[in-house]
Amino acid sequence: MAFISSRSKYAVNPLREDDSIVQALRSKGKKVISLNIGNPPLYFPTPRYIIDAYIGALKEGRTGYSEADGIPELREAVAMRYRRMYGVRASKDDVVVTQGISEALEFMNCALINPGDYGVLFIPYYVQYITHLKLFGGNPLMCNYDENRNWDVDTDELDKSIKKIRAAGKADRIKYLMLTNPDNPTGKVLERKTLKKIVDIANNNDIFIVSDEIYDEITYNGAKFTSVAEIAKGVPHAILNGASKNYDATGFRLGFVLLPEKDRKSTLLKESFRDYAAVRLSANVPAQYAMAKAMNNVRAHNAAIRKMRDEIQDRVNYAVGLLQKNPYLKTQRPKGAFYIFSRVDLKALGFRSDKDFADALLKEEYIQVVRGSGFGMSSHIRIVSLAPKEILGYAIDKINSFCERHANEKE
Amino acid sequence: MAFISSRSKYAVNPLREDDSIVQALRSKGKKVISLNIGNPPLYFPTPRYIIDAYIGALKEGRTGYSEADGIPELREAVAMRYRRMYGVRASKDDVVVTQGISEALEFMNCALINPGDYGVLFIPYYVQYITHLKLFGGNPLMCNYDENRNWDVDTDELDKSIKKIRAAGKADRIKYLMLTNPDNPTGKVLERKTLKKIVDIANNNDIFIVSDEIYDEITYNGAKFTSVAEIAKGVPHAILNGASKNYDATGFRLGFVLLPEKDRKSTLLKESFRDYAAVRLSANVPAQYAMAKAMNNVRAHNAAIRKMRDEIQDRVNYAVGLLQKNPYLKTQRPKGAFYIFSRVDLKALGFRSDKDFADALLKEEYIQVVRGSGFGMSSHIRIVSLAPKEILGYAIDKINSFCERHANEKE
Repeated sequence: MAFISSRSKYAVNPLREDDSIVQALRSKGKKVISLNIGNPPLYFPTPRYIIDAYIGALKEGRTGYSEADGIPELREAVAMRYRRMYGVRASKDDVVVTQGISEALEFMNCALINPGDYGVLFIPYYVQYITHLKLFGGNPLMCNYDENRNWDVDTDELDKSIKKIRAAGKADRIKYLMLTNPDNPTGKVLERKTLKKIVDIANNNDIFIVSDEIYDEITYNGAKFTSVAEIAKGVPHAILNGASKNYDATGFRLGFVLLPEKDRKSTLLKESFRDYAAVRLSANVPAQYAMAKAMNNVRAHNAAIRKMRDEIQDRVNYAVGLLQKNPYLKTQRPKGAFYIFSRVDLKALGFRSDKDFADALLKEEYIQVVRGSGFGMSSHIRIVSLAPKEILGYAIDKINSFCERHANEKE
Repeated sequence: MAFISSRSKYAVNPLREDDSIVQALRSKGKKVISLNIGNPPLYFPTPRYIIDAYIGALKEGRTGYSEADGIPELREAVAMRYRRMYGVRASKDDVVVTQGISEALEFMNCALINPGDYGVLFIPYYVQYITHLKLFGGNPLMCNYDENRNWDVDTDELDKSIKKIRAAGKADRIKYLMLTNPDNPTGKVLERKTLKKIVDIANNNDIFIVSDEIYDEITYNGAKFTSVAEIAKGVPHAILNGASKNYDATGFRLGFVLLPEKDRKSTLLKESFRDYAAVRLSANVPAQYAMAKAMNNVRAHNAAIRKMRDEIQDRVNYAVGLLQKNPYLKTQRPKGAFYIFSRVDLKALGFRSDKDFADALLKEEYIQVVRGSGFGMSSHIRIVSLAPKEILGYAIDKINSFCERHANEKE
């Protein structure tokens, strides 16, 4: 019997898999540009009003354990945000505070997945969805974002996949359907009518919906965001969100789960989230007080998010423009989040896989991106487009000349 | 198939199980005294030099994700602490930063436990040890702290228990032996010669040792603390520690795992800790910078911990004195941490269980303690002795008169 558990093979994070190579390069004096992690505070300092609230919490001595499911002030601020922005009838008792969405995903899969159960995921998926599903013995039921239809969800395929499991008599083994909107890695913002179809399919099949909406205020290029909470009224669902992206505070490690419905599944899952939260005592406490205050400061937040969103739109569009000049990449213009997910013509460039492509790009040009296969979709790369234009421009020039060189070498 | 996973029945925390009753009482205007959670900052404000370091980190903009296994500055500070205090040859690469010891326990059990594997626990155990072991399908191999020998470990029993598993051909299914020193809930500080015996037994049976030493600087009443790291040189082991108790900062949620050895098991587990850390991206970042600075400020720390330790000794001894007047309790004097673990004469008081006792004490006297069965040892209660003497005195007077009344009612 091996010392390390067999489930540990799933404990991998493609976003960070090349970090040791990067460290080695940097220790040799190489200047590596990392476009692998969506970490806004690296380029957009966390707004002053949030920092001030955090400092205030420390000065007030908010340094002991809090309520396990989060301080009431923060849970109320989250509920109020959803009442204000999306007209959701939510109270603080519908909210659980977690250590980032990472922990929310862990709790959810630990709470729902028995070995052999299914979670519905859309390809390409955010990497952690599959990690936590598999760590607890679950299987993904995969559906596709259709690259040829501007990354729209193929709802007919979704319906068929679920029917197949139903036909096998395993309908109740499908524990949840996981959405990401705006999407990571594609930048897709789902239209209201598509969301409506997905919610109907889930409802008709008695499948709990989980919608990760951590980028809900980072939409642009004319996108109109709709929250699942707006259209799933009366349908069992959970919304995931947090401080990391909209509030530009990834390092606080604060996530929120909102379960606004009162049905049996919502109630059971809410209780279970509370139980798992109690086991680990609490999330970081001064950060909770900071976020409670910051979320209620709507005016300061609106000014900050507008500025960041405009700047992100500008940087993303600039990067897309440069990438679209590259004949070996196929790059669509995102409307949300800050990722660009380009298809790579591996054959023309002489690479066997997107991993080989990403590794070579790192070793030859010192540019770190993430391979698409890390998101379940090979022949792609994800580029984080948060850096200032001069850095993005420099990095994409490198990517483009790298492709040109490899294409020539191949000929 | 039920919606909630079958493992979720283990997601309970006896420390917090009465929190909803407490909330209900408080909402009715009752003044409840909670002696259930070991939360030093509630009574000892986190030292100013730590708060200042935290504020400094925020002002410097340390608000994005960090390295998944912890910022190098903090890992180096932890390694230095162990070099300085215990002469351990450790470097920053031997340290992984976690979100409290809670997360370290989760990672460890997720990394090591296949269904049916064993972890050696001593009864009474800290509640989370069994939770995480069972959540991942493991079984406890139970040994006893001997209440009649001042809570010393019965090393002969330990040896026999392990031999039994070996005889069944399942030696390699024992994944670790879990120590807590100073102990929660008994306050026992293990003597060097006992520790030596335990380390020898583990080594002879090729069992990985994990020592939770989160209270290592909170010893008193003449105790002399020995770290497993001092005597397990060359023996595979991990030390758990963190900011919560010695640094009086439970709400920061920062723990540390130190794996100082270079053997195969230590190396595999260290890699696995890194993998699991990468999955959840990072721990709270400004708190990491604060703790890195604070741990290197040895002079300020020594002054603060000496003051807190003296005060805790005073409060614990005062509480023990009052509890020893109660003829229905058997209370031993702790030498470490800040818990008192009293045996309750349930029969004389007319209670069927320690849970009934604790519930009645809460509902009749508004005093919250934790039932011993939550730590695997029934007929006991755990009392946190951090509050000022006037509060402790008031609460224990209530406990004593509660016992007197129930003993009289029974007659």
